[in-house]
Amino acid sequence: MMRALATLMGLTLFAPAAMAANDQVTDFTLDNGMDVVVIEDHRAPVAVHMVWYRAGAADEPPGDSGVAHYLEHLMFKGTDTLDPGEFSATVARHGGNDNAFTSQDYTGYYQRIAADRLDMMMRMEADRMMNLRLAGTDIVTERNVIIEERNQRVENDPGALFREQKRAAQYLNHPYGIPIIGWRAEIETLGREQVLDFYRTFYAPNNAILVVAGDVTPDEVRTMAEKHYGALPANTDLSPRSRPQEPPQRAERRLVMRDARVGTPYVSRSYLAPERDSGAQQKAAALTLLAKILGGGQTSVLAEKLQFDASVAIHTAAYYSGRSLDETTFNMVVVPAEGVSLQQAEEALDTALAEFMREGVDARELERIKLQARAGQIYERDDVQRLARRYGGALTQGLTVEDVQAWPGIIQSVTADDIMAAARDVLDKRRAVTGWLDKEEVTQ
Amino acid sequence: MMRALATLMGLTLFAPAAMAANDQVTDFTLDNGMDVVVIEDHRAPVAVHMVWYRAGAADEPPGDSGVAHYLEHLMFKGTDTLDPGEFSATVARHGGNDNAFTSQDYTGYYQRIAADRLDMMMRMEADRMMNLRLAGTDIVTERNVIIEERNQRVENDPGALFREQKRAAQYLNHPYGIPIIGWRAEIETLGREQVLDFYRTFYAPNNAILVVAGDVTPDEVRTMAEKHYGALPANTDLSPRSRPQEPPQRAERRLVMRDARVGTPYVSRSYLAPERDSGAQQKAAALTLLAKILGGGQTSVLAEKLQFDASVAIHTAAYYSGRSLDETTFNMVVVPAEGVSLQQAEEALDTALAEFMREGVDARELERIKLQARAGQIYERDDVQRLARRYGGALTQGLTVEDVQAWPGIIQSVTADDIMAAARDVLDKRRAVTGWLDKEEVTQ
Repeated sequence: MMRALATLMGLTLFAPAAMAANDQVTDFTLDNGMDVVVIEDHRAPVAVHMVWYRAGAADEPPGDSGVAHYLEHLMFKGTDTLDPGEFSATVARHGGNDNAFTSQDYTGYYQRIAADRLDMMMRMEADRMMNLRLAGTDIVTERNVIIEERNQRVENDPGALFREQKRAAQYLNHPYGIPIIGWRAEIETLGREQVLDFYRTFYAPNNAILVVAGDVTPDEVRTMAEKHYGALPANTDLSPRSRPQEPPQRAERRLVMRDARVGTPYVSRSYLAPERDSGAQQKAAALTLLAKILGGGQTSVLAEKLQFDASVAIHTAAYYSGRSLDETTFNMVVVPAEGVSLQQAEEALDTALAEFMREGVDARELERIKLQARAGQIYERDDVQRLARRYGGALTQGLTVEDVQAWPGIIQSVTADDIMAAARDVLDKRRAVTGWLDKEEVTQ
Repeated sequence: MMRALATLMGLTLFAPAAMAANDQVTDFTLDNGMDVVVIEDHRAPVAVHMVWYRAGAADEPPGDSGVAHYLEHLMFKGTDTLDPGEFSATVARHGGNDNAFTSQDYTGYYQRIAADRLDMMMRMEADRMMNLRLAGTDIVTERNVIIEERNQRVENDPGALFREQKRAAQYLNHPYGIPIIGWRAEIETLGREQVLDFYRTFYAPNNAILVVAGDVTPDEVRTMAEKHYGALPANTDLSPRSRPQEPPQRAERRLVMRDARVGTPYVSRSYLAPERDSGAQQKAAALTLLAKILGGGQTSVLAEKLQFDASVAIHTAAYYSGRSLDETTFNMVVVPAEGVSLQQAEEALDTALAEFMREGVDARELERIKLQARAGQIYERDDVQRLARRYGGALTQGLTVEDVQAWPGIIQSVTADDIMAAARDVLDKRRAVTGWLDKEEVTQ
């Protein structure tokens, strides 16, 4: 289906400006400050309804890590008019599905449902934005659910523990060093008071973004949104969003974690890197392409040098996403081949990077990656839910609809020189953490 | 003078219980919650007057690093009845001197002056606890003074920058990872509002400890303290003291800083370590002795193994202080000899530590160190200002007068087994950061 569409749309693959215009996106703001984005897609009579709060784990008070995610769970408990669990049950009864997600920068709630049930979704979502009721038993039960979630996803997974420790070493001051799910000891101290503080501070229409995508028109959405969300009072005490920022990072850091449960040892390196900012996305675009060039697949620089030329690694990757409110990271991974030590793998990585800095970007490879990016944009537009997430997420990090639409064109405009300049700037070990996850036991 | 006293008191050197009783210390609490400690020493007609607030850099709101220290500076500006600078000028005019200090856990103000001026000191100190007045020009001028102080003490000193980066890597969650003076970019954002918030939150009699030491009696101090400090209102909104604590540290960390200005490269390692807690000081006592045994001088383990047996190092040291509200660090330094690399120096350190773990504590060396400790306690009692600082600091970290007085006896009761148990527990690389400060330029 996706492949067919790409073929069908082949003629537009080389016209990024036309592509952007293809997103039928309308945005406006309600009187109480709630932003609204409408993405029209009339191919099927369904709609995705999302409410995004500009509040994530990095907005938590110190010591209360995990409260954003905890609240996300508790939002499925009752309100004055809905019993616990009734929200999701109602969505399911009407043939839809719903879920929620918490990141460092936002918390989002969504339902995918028949377009004619949109009014009901808005009524229920507006209700829980203001009228959450938390019974003592729900508080305790759900906290245990989250601790169990942490046990399964983190405590029992050395790779997850390693990433958590590494991220804490990456950020010297910014709360991005704190895990989204929270430190276990802090989760255990969370209670009704902290949850309600977070809820009352951040859950308000003027801190929220409504994204509706699918078989809807902007006028319909506006009318319904004004009825349900427009009636809610703004939180006039809301402070401008601001987190402690990173000081200059001046010292290369390294980290070794050894755990008997590790199956495949690997080397991972992350460099502090800039994020996409409104009107200033060029550097992030260059880093996006740099990640593809270095570690985006079988023809990438790291794959060629470490996997094919020298059989040092069985897997290499580089990844970067500029979707972040504050400074993010540029990441690389090398999984050494049998008989190759982590030390040797890391040395091979450094050698490969040094060679790349001398050799520069292969022009044909860059063109291939840009072509992939154009194709990816087309595929993505076929997935209305993904598109809705893209716009919602972008707005929580201070980007505009125009920034999102400009992005594909900016990606296409990046030159090899831009990429090398970004590489020289960002691939600075003083701002990097290099981690080894190893299978041996720790020794004194 | 100190040596004479030690000889004079030689007979009591082996009687720790008697030593403790020798401190003539009285403590009580005013009705508004202000704690008072009086240390009598009638040898000279002078008094040290100190007010300690249970508020330091680790109590700052996120993003406002440096505000505790900034406020400390601004406390020398005027009140309703004192002009800027008049406080210190008055102390000097009466033949005294005054100063202040900010740590992670407390902020303290003191004057040393003729005992008959104590009433005046209390009047002025009580005045600025409540009635600080901050002119806009003072705010800006003093912030520039602090930025210049940071430039001189930190930015221009690679060793200080290195310690700052290393400390940030040591603490994954606790604000001890943030420098007391503040991150430069955050200092620059501090203004009247943040300073006054900190002042109004933490500067109150129920968050303060008065220590008076010298030619005074408890009754005199009580009468004066009730008159000046007893009249001040408590801050009834004061929350129990609590900072984000460390999660389990699971991954050994390393850090390399290279700077052209470095004269003497060195290896430094710190392990997260417990602090002294009220009624539970034994482990901290064992660590205190462990630091002396490992790196307390020319006969210590590291000196013998690294400086004398093998000429690997020109300097070694280990240090630990349990004077901390939350988890502190156990630290070691090795400065390699000419021609020895940091890598070699670190390997030699690890070898020496492994040998020590097998060989254990030399009984004669332990006795020698305990004897030194007893002598040190005696010397210290000769310095009333130091004694006052000891009690004041201890009370800000939750210790009692009794804990302080029990400490010398606890030190004497530590066994070789206690020390080795503490070493096995604390010298765990998973909770350590090993740093190299090197003179070479950073390379890609």
